[in-house]
Amino acid sequence: MPHQLLTNFTSYIQGQQLFDPSQKVLLAVSGGVDSVVMATLFKQAGFNAAIAHCNFQLRGEESLRDEAFVRALAAQLSLPFFQVSFNTTGYAETHQVTIQVAARELRYEWLEAIRNQEGYHYIATAHHMQDSVETALMNFAKGTGIAGLHGILPKQEKVIRPLLFAEKDTLIAFAAWKNIQFVEDSSNTTDKYTRNFFRRQVIPRIQEVFPAAVKNMAATTERIREAEYLYQEAVERKKKQLLVQNGNTWMVPVRKLQHIKPLSTIAWEIFRHYGCSAAQTQQVLLLLGSESGRYVETSTHRIIRNRNWLLITPLADIAAPLQVIDAEQQHVHFAGGQLHIRQEKRDPHLPIPTSPFIACLDASQVTFPLLLRKWKQGDYLYPLGMPKKKKVSRLLIDQKLSLPEKEQVWVLESAKKIVWVLGLRIDDRVKITPKTQSVLQIEWKKISGE
Amino acid sequence: MPHQLLTNFTSYIQGQQLFDPSQKVLLAVSGGVDSVVMATLFKQAGFNAAIAHCNFQLRGEESLRDEAFVRALAAQLSLPFFQVSFNTTGYAETHQVTIQVAARELRYEWLEAIRNQEGYHYIATAHHMQDSVETALMNFAKGTGIAGLHGILPKQEKVIRPLLFAEKDTLIAFAAWKNIQFVEDSSNTTDKYTRNFFRRQVIPRIQEVFPAAVKNMAATTERIREAEYLYQEAVERKKKQLLVQNGNTWMVPVRKLQHIKPLSTIAWEIFRHYGCSAAQTQQVLLLLGSESGRYVETSTHRIIRNRNWLLITPLADIAAPLQVIDAEQQHVHFAGGQLHIRQEKRDPHLPIPTSPFIACLDASQVTFPLLLRKWKQGDYLYPLGMPKKKKVSRLLIDQKLSLPEKEQVWVLESAKKIVWVLGLRIDDRVKITPKTQSVLQIEWKKISGE
Repeated sequence: MPHQLLTNFTSYIQGQQLFDPSQKVLLAVSGGVDSVVMATLFKQAGFNAAIAHCNFQLRGEESLRDEAFVRALAAQLSLPFFQVSFNTTGYAETHQVTIQVAARELRYEWLEAIRNQEGYHYIATAHHMQDSVETALMNFAKGTGIAGLHGILPKQEKVIRPLLFAEKDTLIAFAAWKNIQFVEDSSNTTDKYTRNFFRRQVIPRIQEVFPAAVKNMAATTERIREAEYLYQEAVERKKKQLLVQNGNTWMVPVRKLQHIKPLSTIAWEIFRHYGCSAAQTQQVLLLLGSESGRYVETSTHRIIRNRNWLLITPLADIAAPLQVIDAEQQHVHFAGGQLHIRQEKRDPHLPIPTSPFIACLDASQVTFPLLLRKWKQGDYLYPLGMPKKKKVSRLLIDQKLSLPEKEQVWVLESAKKIVWVLGLRIDDRVKITPKTQSVLQIEWKKISGE
Repeated sequence: MPHQLLTNFTSYIQGQQLFDPSQKVLLAVSGGVDSVVMATLFKQAGFNAAIAHCNFQLRGEESLRDEAFVRALAAQLSLPFFQVSFNTTGYAETHQVTIQVAARELRYEWLEAIRNQEGYHYIATAHHMQDSVETALMNFAKGTGIAGLHGILPKQEKVIRPLLFAEKDTLIAFAAWKNIQFVEDSSNTTDKYTRNFFRRQVIPRIQEVFPAAVKNMAATTERIREAEYLYQEAVERKKKQLLVQNGNTWMVPVRKLQHIKPLSTIAWEIFRHYGCSAAQTQQVLLLLGSESGRYVETSTHRIIRNRNWLLITPLADIAAPLQVIDAEQQHVHFAGGQLHIRQEKRDPHLPIPTSPFIACLDASQVTFPLLLRKWKQGDYLYPLGMPKKKKVSRLLIDQKLSLPEKEQVWVLESAKKIVWVLGLRIDDRVKITPKTQSVLQIEWKKISGE
């Protein structure tokens, strides 16, 4: 119903809370029917808007014609006009991307810059219901998850799509009814080819058996959007149960992950944030059955099996990764040498070793798993014999360590507390006392030659 | 790859835990290529299976040909054979359903009866990947939610689909390779027409741009299935927060529901269990802004706005529905008359009224909202002056009430406890004591004329 378009337009903006009538919106206008109708509607509704046009210089004379057309449209509607011309082909070559990607990047970057400089609240694009349904359907055919089926979103950060409620036919009918002029785009890029194929070949076939298919599919994408909200809520809850942070490293307990349901989806939702592709997520799942030391390397992180944990370490940190020490473990090999661990009954007649390379701790005060790692800024402990806490950095200064020496300092952590700065000092809270019944003795053997 | 079909078949059964090799499976075999290949695979894998065939008598000679063919197949594979002939047209007429629905109902009912009588664990149908993808795509075009996009499920109670991993082409190639004979179904029912249209007209078009579309869409449906698991988890959590049971009636607090996100989906997931259609759910949402007394009636329940609650009452119970009484309410009109409520400071010099139509309760012992309803079996209280609990049914017998009188007995509930059997007795635990500071006085005025 073209004569209801303006009413539906304003109620959609209100219902979806796209923007407030007092806010200023920058309209991306190519000159095609969708964006010209959008600009007209903004004008008719009395919103505060401006027109922005990109000339990608990909279609010679036609590009210039479109630019002139949109400039005239802005004048006719008395809206501010912003324009830019890009060397799209050059950008694509320099950045080794396709023409479509180049145009897209240039466009959004420039629109955002203008929006910001000129004090507009939002950028509006003229995507309509058909665009959204096509996107969802193409994603379905390409293979996707729940996020690929929600179609085009009405609002994403600073970009709004106030025409998503409208069918393409309605926009065309509105233009005809109001005698609105627009230009036709003769381009036929690969991206457009696939989309046009769905628009002209696939969807009309579906409409032969389900005439209301576009509306039905749009309604489906909206329901999927709501379902996705609940899905995300459940995912976040599971992630909280599974992820333990330690500095830059994240730890996932293997047994807990193994029993999570549904495993593939949760693994994907966890590991994709650390550069994991879908295929790599499957490799990470193989680590659940592998031995310690195996790992998968993503573009940003190494995900390594370490005893009963998967450790997610930034690539920058893997020279000295975190190491997990379980209760039953007696020998630990790490970049700084080896640890030998044994637990035994306290014999009050034996003296406590004084070597800084042997830590004797009250076993009842220590919680496994222990974590072995390089020290970092912000670390502190209660050094043996001292009544108050001290920064590890301070301790290293007192010990007059050189910078390279400082870089080789390791600490042992128990339940988020540092219990031993290796070779230097244990923590007072875990020392042997007359009440100690069981002793955890840890000996550090530095790499031979040192 | 037809030569890997048997291996893929057994690993799919194992991976999806469809059945245990020691269990017996009843195979639904029409005689078409899919079900004949399925029967062959069960035989080759050495599983314990039998063949079941339905003759729907819809295609005259062809139906008889198919029946004879499947009988011969069972003999050739040395599998037990069960067969039935239906008067499908007669059933459709008698039950006022379409031929497709009739055939479906007759088929599953008979298969389940045979499964049960003959001691089979599961019924297997020969749905393959294409069937599943077609179902999801048709649902998408018809409009659906997340459940409509998961495709055909591998296991639903006693029905399993062990061929869902396979593409139609692979089944045909396997039949050709093994020289397996099968029959062709010439029928062209409406249901099949739509499905065949998607199979022959829509999906091949999609495959022109995305050749792996069927596999991609199948992978999508699997991800949707996992997403749906998480979605359901989140839905159940919200439902627990929102639904309060009281006998056959369910109560939903209006303010809590108003603030739930996402509202439409949660409302749908709650109310569809009480006979609500999608359109009626939208009507129920209008009750959130309406006055007390407005309601929506579904096929099974009445959903009524009552003060700050939505009450979901079975239609059988609506003659005497539950009524909610809030703290600020002074007058209640109900099927049994009126209640007049006031709260005041206890004056120790005033006698406590003895009329059975006036209840004087210790306000500090009463929790709002109060619920007013007919008594039901299982109700009990601690009658005033008695040290132990008593069934309301027993109290009514002691009072020598007639059956029609018993049917008119109302009770007042506070925090799941009955505090007053109207006109008969209050509960001892809410009586006025020397410590009582504030009195809640409730007077019952029966309908005039009684």
